[in-house]
Amino acid sequence: MAEPLAYINGEWLPHREAKISIFDSAVMLGDCVTESTRTFAREPFRLEAHVARLYDSIKVCRYDFDMPREEMLALSLEVIERNADCYAPDEDLWLVHNISRGGYPMSGDQSAKRVPTVMLHTAPMDLTYWAAFYLRGCHAVTPPSRMMPAQSLDPKIKNRSRMSYTLAELETKLVDPMAQGILLDHNGLLTENKGGNFFLVKDGVLRTPRTLQALAGVTRQATLDIARDLGIPAEERDLQPYDVYTADEAFFTSTPYCIMPATRFNGLPVGDGAVGEVTIRLLDGWAALTGVDVVAQALGQLAEAERAELFAQESWWTRRTSR
Amino acid sequence: MAEPLAYINGEWLPHREAKISIFDSAVMLGDCVTESTRTFAREPFRLEAHVARLYDSIKVCRYDFDMPREEMLALSLEVIERNADCYAPDEDLWLVHNISRGGYPMSGDQSAKRVPTVMLHTAPMDLTYWAAFYLRGCHAVTPPSRMMPAQSLDPKIKNRSRMSYTLAELETKLVDPMAQGILLDHNGLLTENKGGNFFLVKDGVLRTPRTLQALAGVTRQATLDIARDLGIPAEERDLQPYDVYTADEAFFTSTPYCIMPATRFNGLPVGDGAVGEVTIRLLDGWAALTGVDVVAQALGQLAEAERAELFAQESWWTRRTSR
Amino acid sequence: MAEPLAYINGEWLPHREAKISIFDSAVMLGDCVTESTRTFAREPFRLEAHVARLYDSIKVCRYDFDMPREEMLALSLEVIERNADCYAPDEDLWLVHNISRGGYPMSGDQSAKRVPTVMLHTAPMDLTYWAAFYLRGCHAVTPPSRMMPAQSLDPKIKNRSRMSYTLAELETKLVDPMAQGILLDHNGLLTENKGGNFFLVKDGVLRTPRTLQALAGVTRQATLDIARDLGIPAEERDLQPYDVYTADEAFFTSTPYCIMPATRFNGLPVGDGAVGEVTIRLLDGWAALTGVDVVAQALGQLAEAERAELFAQESWWTRRTSR
Amino acid sequence: MAEPLAYINGEWLPHREAKISIFDSAVMLGDCVTESTRTFAREPFRLEAHVARLYDSIKVCRYDFDMPREEMLALSLEVIERNADCYAPDEDLWLVHNISRGGYPMSGDQSAKRVPTVMLHTAPMDLTYWAAFYLRGCHAVTPPSRMMPAQSLDPKIKNRSRMSYTLAELETKLVDPMAQGILLDHNGLLTENKGGNFFLVKDGVLRTPRTLQALAGVTRQATLDIARDLGIPAEERDLQPYDVYTADEAFFTSTPYCIMPATRFNGLPVGDGAVGEVTIRLLDGWAALTGVDVVAQALGQLAEAERAELFAQESWWTRRTSR
Amino acid sequence: MAEPLAYINGEWLPHREAKISIFDSAVMLGDCVTESTRTFAREPFRLEAHVARLYDSIKVCRYDFDMPREEMLALSLEVIERNADCYAPDEDLWLVHNISRGGYPMSGDQSAKRVPTVMLHTAPMDLTYWAAFYLRGCHAVTPPSRMMPAQSLDPKIKNRSRMSYTLAELETKLVDPMAQGILLDHNGLLTENKGGNFFLVKDGVLRTPRTLQALAGVTRQATLDIARDLGIPAEERDLQPYDVYTADEAFFTSTPYCIMPATRFNGLPVGDGAVGEVTIRLLDGWAALTGVDVVAQALGQLAEAERAELFAQESWWTRRTSR
Amino acid sequence: MAEPLAYINGEWLPHREAKISIFDSAVMLGDCVTESTRTFAREPFRLEAHVARLYDSIKVCRYDFDMPREEMLALSLEVIERNADCYAPDEDLWLVHNISRGGYPMSGDQSAKRVPTVMLHTAPMDLTYWAAFYLRGCHAVTPPSRMMPAQSLDPKIKNRSRMSYTLAELETKLVDPMAQGILLDHNGLLTENKGGNFFLVKDGVLRTPRTLQALAGVTRQATLDIARDLGIPAEERDLQPYDVYTADEAFFTSTPYCIMPATRFNGLPVGDGAVGEVTIRLLDGWAALTGVDVVAQALGQLAEAERAELFAQESWWTRRTSR
Repeated sequence: MAEPLAYINGEWLPHREAKISIFDSAVMLGDCVTESTRTFAREPFRLEAHVARLYDSIKVCRYDFDMPREEMLALSLEVIERNADCYAPDEDLWLVHNISRGGYPMSGDQSAKRVPTVMLHTAPMDLTYWAAFYLRGCHAVTPPSRMMPAQSLDPKIKNRSRMSYTLAELETKLVDPMAQGILLDHNGLLTENKGGNFFLVKDGVLRTPRTLQALAGVTRQATLDIARDLGIPAEERDLQPYDVYTADEAFFTSTPYCIMPATRFNGLPVGDGAVGEVTIRLLDGWAALTGVDVVAQALGQLAEAERAELFAQESWWTRRTSR
Repeated sequence: MAEPLAYINGEWLPHREAKISIFDSAVMLGDCVTESTRTFAREPFRLEAHVARLYDSIKVCRYDFDMPREEMLALSLEVIERNADCYAPDEDLWLVHNISRGGYPMSGDQSAKRVPTVMLHTAPMDLTYWAAFYLRGCHAVTPPSRMMPAQSLDPKIKNRSRMSYTLAELETKLVDPMAQGILLDHNGLLTENKGGNFFLVKDGVLRTPRTLQALAGVTRQATLDIARDLGIPAEERDLQPYDVYTADEAFFTSTPYCIMPATRFNGLPVGDGAVGEVTIRLLDGWAALTGVDVVAQALGQLAEAERAELFAQESWWTRRTSR
Repeated sequence: MAEPLAYINGEWLPHREAKISIFDSAVMLGDCVTESTRTFAREPFRLEAHVARLYDSIKVCRYDFDMPREEMLALSLEVIERNADCYAPDEDLWLVHNISRGGYPMSGDQSAKRVPTVMLHTAPMDLTYWAAFYLRGCHAVTPPSRMMPAQSLDPKIKNRSRMSYTLAELETKLVDPMAQGILLDHNGLLTENKGGNFFLVKDGVLRTPRTLQALAGVTRQATLDIARDLGIPAEERDLQPYDVYTADEAFFTSTPYCIMPATRFNGLPVGDGAVGEVTIRLLDGWAALTGVDVVAQALGQLAEAERAELFAQESWWTRRTSR
Repeated sequence: MAEPLAYINGEWLPHREAKISIFDSAVMLGDCVTESTRTFAREPFRLEAHVARLYDSIKVCRYDFDMPREEMLALSLEVIERNADCYAPDEDLWLVHNISRGGYPMSGDQSAKRVPTVMLHTAPMDLTYWAAFYLRGCHAVTPPSRMMPAQSLDPKIKNRSRMSYTLAELETKLVDPMAQGILLDHNGLLTENKGGNFFLVKDGVLRTPRTLQALAGVTRQATLDIARDLGIPAEERDLQPYDVYTADEAFFTSTPYCIMPATRFNGLPVGDGAVGEVTIRLLDGWAALTGVDVVAQALGQLAEAERAELFAQESWWTRRTSR
Repeated sequence: MAEPLAYINGEWLPHREAKISIFDSAVMLGDCVTESTRTFAREPFRLEAHVARLYDSIKVCRYDFDMPREEMLALSLEVIERNADCYAPDEDLWLVHNISRGGYPMSGDQSAKRVPTVMLHTAPMDLTYWAAFYLRGCHAVTPPSRMMPAQSLDPKIKNRSRMSYTLAELETKLVDPMAQGILLDHNGLLTENKGGNFFLVKDGVLRTPRTLQALAGVTRQATLDIARDLGIPAEERDLQPYDVYTADEAFFTSTPYCIMPATRFNGLPVGDGAVGEVTIRLLDGWAALTGVDVVAQALGQLAEAERAELFAQESWWTRRTSR
Repeated sequence: MAEPLAYINGEWLPHREAKISIFDSAVMLGDCVTESTRTFAREPFRLEAHVARLYDSIKVCRYDFDMPREEMLALSLEVIERNADCYAPDEDLWLVHNISRGGYPMSGDQSAKRVPTVMLHTAPMDLTYWAAFYLRGCHAVTPPSRMMPAQSLDPKIKNRSRMSYTLAELETKLVDPMAQGILLDHNGLLTENKGGNFFLVKDGVLRTPRTLQALAGVTRQATLDIARDLGIPAEERDLQPYDVYTADEAFFTSTPYCIMPATRFNGLPVGDGAVGEVTIRLLDGWAALTGVDVVAQALGQLAEAERAELFAQESWWTRRTSR
């Protein structure tokens, strides 16, 4: 298949040649805002919401950026279109926007007008890393480092200065190489994952932290919308580790996997240690909303042997598929 | 003159071609550690200290990096050597190290071993932006955003996830387009500038914040060393805006400019509003230590007219040079 | 016209003679509680609510104060009545209550019973300072200093120890001499202005910070009441600078001006940079509630030339008045 | 004797007529800086240090104030001189400086230039309230409210917005009507009293909190100077309630009483519950430094019966005077 | 009457012999979780909720505990049954569960599997200490120490490491030997009492702090349930001392006394200083829910003289009983 | 050998019978202060310092305790003496003091005078758990939970309400079953271990956290004394995880093991990953000070096979013993 093309400031470059200067402020300062959208059956999901948030990030970061929003939307669709044949027909795609402030003035004079670097690219929606989590749940772990406070850098600005997330995620891997981090803020409240939001279910009610110290995720919002449509009561509220230890169910949400069940928390089972009923209903809701069963999609990406091994274990999915 | 070469993972590339993949974790995650060293009369200043700190950053960030420290030192010198003729003979150089964790795994599986991206480059030591500050001092301003706490990301790790610094610096420009930011921590203590440390002088004593929430700058340490050699008492201690308002002198320290006097603070004069005696003694100490008078170097880079305009104003420098 | 009279502990004194001892605890300790009420068409607005809050402040400050509340209400009306003819017939009035703990015991013995100093006065409702803001909006700015925490001094006690507000407001003037400050608390949440509350509008919903670290303003409450009556959804919730940067509209509320639109925030436009629809509806609601169009009142106080200049600029008001 | 005169902006007024407008910003905003100096044998103590701090406060508060410092010193001495005969020959005096920002602009326009209100007055150095404390020590109590953080209002600015101190002091009186408050900061560290600093002695070492959240008291500094001269090791360091509970001695310092021993802390004895040796040495040092035995001065102000009752109790003083 | 029996790990021991090893981790580490349930007319109240919370505590504390929940319920009832005749027929009982982690490994090796120590006992429901509070209300006082933050130890884990509560409660006794403490968290928000929750009533609305820093009390929940059934609007929300000072009513809730009215707060009356209407309605609701009038029960336990003295004072109860 | 005797309020009981009532406040409230002393060659080490701290704890906790300090010292020696023959001649002992407030008043009336429960016991100084750490170092890990702040419960009060330590230690075991926890405070500063202090060595300087949020350990102080005697510069100062990652050496101190080297920190090697030179010098200093080589003592307690396995690995000890 053809190599996909990335868009960089007006140029279309094959991925292997998709490069930017080491003097770009994305490299020199992590000064880059971003969005990650995925397709379902090749339709981008809530692209308008992603682009709207991108423009919010650009505004708050004070970039000198004048591409109209409609042009960005059109360009986004063009990137998907141009790369359509680079992926298998049944494959879905990532669409990634990275926009940096542009060149970095080594001289200290940052008042010079700079032209932002606009980078768009696609990637195959490879879900193999998360596939087993749908059936068995992942292990959520709180690292010792604390979420960056919004008065230092607001996580609602989706940006690429993510060293603090990366280091915290590596701390969680000390507990379990497959652990997924859930960061606490400086008061010990749950915030978010390095790239997703967190939910729990208690006595039938869906709960997720407020977005004071977390991204207001598009997938998070879609999950709240699905819950509302399914009649599942939901609320945003401050949550603590105790709430997860005593929850019935828990999961992460993020663009690629939609919902990633968490069945262990800091070494203890969440609820009965299996993926829960509300989680499954929400996953079904996601399938209904998008027309794509993301669980089946993920499992379909596994090698035969891996899938067989997973299916040999009892799980909600094996129960469902055996019906 | 020839275009300088940058070193990127074994390749030597002219600056215009010095690029990295948009999929590099430097771009995708701001996952990059860094050092900036300068030369004085083409001799790199305390290069060993910079490289030692670089290796500390690499360790704390848990990069899979096995280049021996000696090799990095040799490579550093080689970069300078190779580019020696690309700059005017009397020009000094920046030497910049950027080392990222390597490629970014779009798939979520971050356990795959990754090869760090090693980037070294030089740049001319252009001091024109700061030149006037040596004579008149700059305007130090505290932005409303707060320094990122070390329990979120320790600033002693010199890294490229600098969005929080950039946004705070832009806030200071609202007060004065030439303002230089001095960030407060979440308790209101002075920390550091986006790229430098801060000092003040009160009753003959030199004071600088502890490095709990600030980089332990090489230039900061050198300035403390110079003070010790000159018999100027110095101490690290918690400082607050009140201390600057009531100080006799204040200045920033950073690699390129060594010492940048600050003669205004949040709109009020520091001391009598002129560059102070201790600051001048320390600048003289810097000249003695490095063999280069950085003030003369900076002024020499100005256009004739600018320099003339500066000299038309009374300042310690005009007094000195008129002697 | 006659000089207005101020009431001071039973005496009626012309303003020029309205003085208190420099040994009063209002002067010596800022130990004074206060209320500011205004009239609309000479009718005091929610005077009972102001007096109720005054008595709450007196209680929490533990003053030895035994004037019955009804007497205070009667006295308040009397002050307005007595001064009725001192102002132009179409002019509205401030009514200000200041009550200090009384004399200050230089000797250190603060157990002696002290007689509170009761001061009431009126002032013309001069809106010229704010008039242009109704049409063009003001510039809201967050200063670096932080709101005093309620565990140090609860802002719900309306009191005259306001140095922290004054200094923070002066910091905002560094950005723009006409800037209006909006203070952040020590977690970076929006609190209040030196003398008013803050609201924003996002996707049709009106939002204002909780009163944990802010005065529970009478004008704030009236604005929430108007919103309820107009069917505008409203909520108290924690707000951050990001919320203002990405809001559609924003405004301050305070006794004199009711609503002061804010169309810039830290140098960036709020929404499209013009006074918004919800703000205008609420201003109309204020006119309906009070029988006074405060915008017209303010504009009417401007000199002809100023008003003409304002009207020469396109704004919602010129559109309205041109209909 | 004649009634003393107060100085108010160029006028000399008998105390009963020493008044300021209720529209002064001292009254309306607590916007007033201050100093309190005392005399020893009619010599003002470290008046230069007090005036220097006053000018620091004026600067940080950004008053438009242009009286030269020398003029303020001269004026200060003149106030004492003019009132010299208003007090008994063996009586010492307070000298109080209050300087407000001037008139308060009811109109909201605070940009108008304002003339500061300069108020100087004297008062008899009445020590009767504290006299017994010298012999028996006072009861230091920590109130539940917390010291205002410096990032809200720096206590090093000596100012008259003191409501938070007053309310906290009233909380301490709930424990004991004669209790003297010692405020904790928001981390639970000891800071200062409503009008003085705090010291403790442990194993022969004198310790006092840093001035991050406390006034840098002139009396505090003088006490440190005396300790140095007496060879008593002393250090500024973070202190907690535990340190007082387990201290050997404790005391407050402030202008009028110099040193006020504290022999109980939150209901428990400090050390053996008696005034300690180091405290007594420091009091002796104060007598040596100033030429006035402040303990004798205070006791001399008591009524005969009170003094007799005090002397009937065993204390260090009765032991000393019985020698 | 017979001496009651306590259950300790399978043994039934008379109270005087009910002992555990001084090497148990309950003694050595305060490593013990707990519940306190009471009976109404000998029926245990919401025993299932208490046991459910006990098992939550056991889980979060990671005890190696395998007794099925049903067995614990049965055992709980057995303890009450066995001791039924040890108390007067009209007397109600406490049922207390204490479960420690088991033996303490002096050797440092805490990995050895340990058998938890299960202790259950009863006690007479002696309400004499609180009886007068029902009629006159208690004095609620905020101590200077701060509630332990949940990120250090979550109070929702009901456990026996209660030194911080005990010391804070002793601080409140400095104000008033009969004071009941209400702890503030490190932001100055109200949390809980050493063994109960706190409520206030303002303008007809019942308010209680969130459970971020407080036990989610069973009695608290029952009180919220009663309010809902009585149509009294209720909300969980952040509360501050100001809210209590200006409340109409206030009370504590806890297992033994259900509701303990608080009519003074830090020395000031709450509302009019008498037990309020909503409080009385809720107490009536408690009687209806449980079939036991806890106020009558408490008063019935007083000695005749004490009761007579109480009744001689006007109170809501005397009004009720005189009807 | 005979079973050792424990002292409990005047009685001498064999350990198996050494019990206290389940109604003791040690059990019911974790209301118990404590000390743990060890012997070296059967001589108690700094027993006076331990008893002095015990009496400080008793005072701060406000126990009604009147046993003279000398009596406690004598009793302490008697416990050791009485049990002398219960241990092997070459074995050293723990001496543990536990003193609770006494009985727990179920009735809520905590004003009744209570008799403290005094418990003293011995235990063999079993060092097998730590033995290998002397040679290879342990793995220090920071748990996500935060140290309890001193304003909630000061760790300088050595007490038995240790649930927060226990839960945090269990969190560290998730990383490594043999991990030793080092708790961070709420600002991310290093504090202490569940039962010991922490030190690091950097560039030849010994550093340990201040005791604001940590016990002022007797072993910690002895280690500082040894360093002083050996000429090793040492300082108390705020330390962060970065300081451990970049340290040359690190270790814990506690009564039983004196010094426990830490050679890994959160999965990364400390220095070169081996026990360092300064640590070894300090261990030698401990041997010199106490007359007991604690390393030899610990190794001597291992089974032959374990010891052989340890010696098969290269370490400083094998190098020393092979000399």
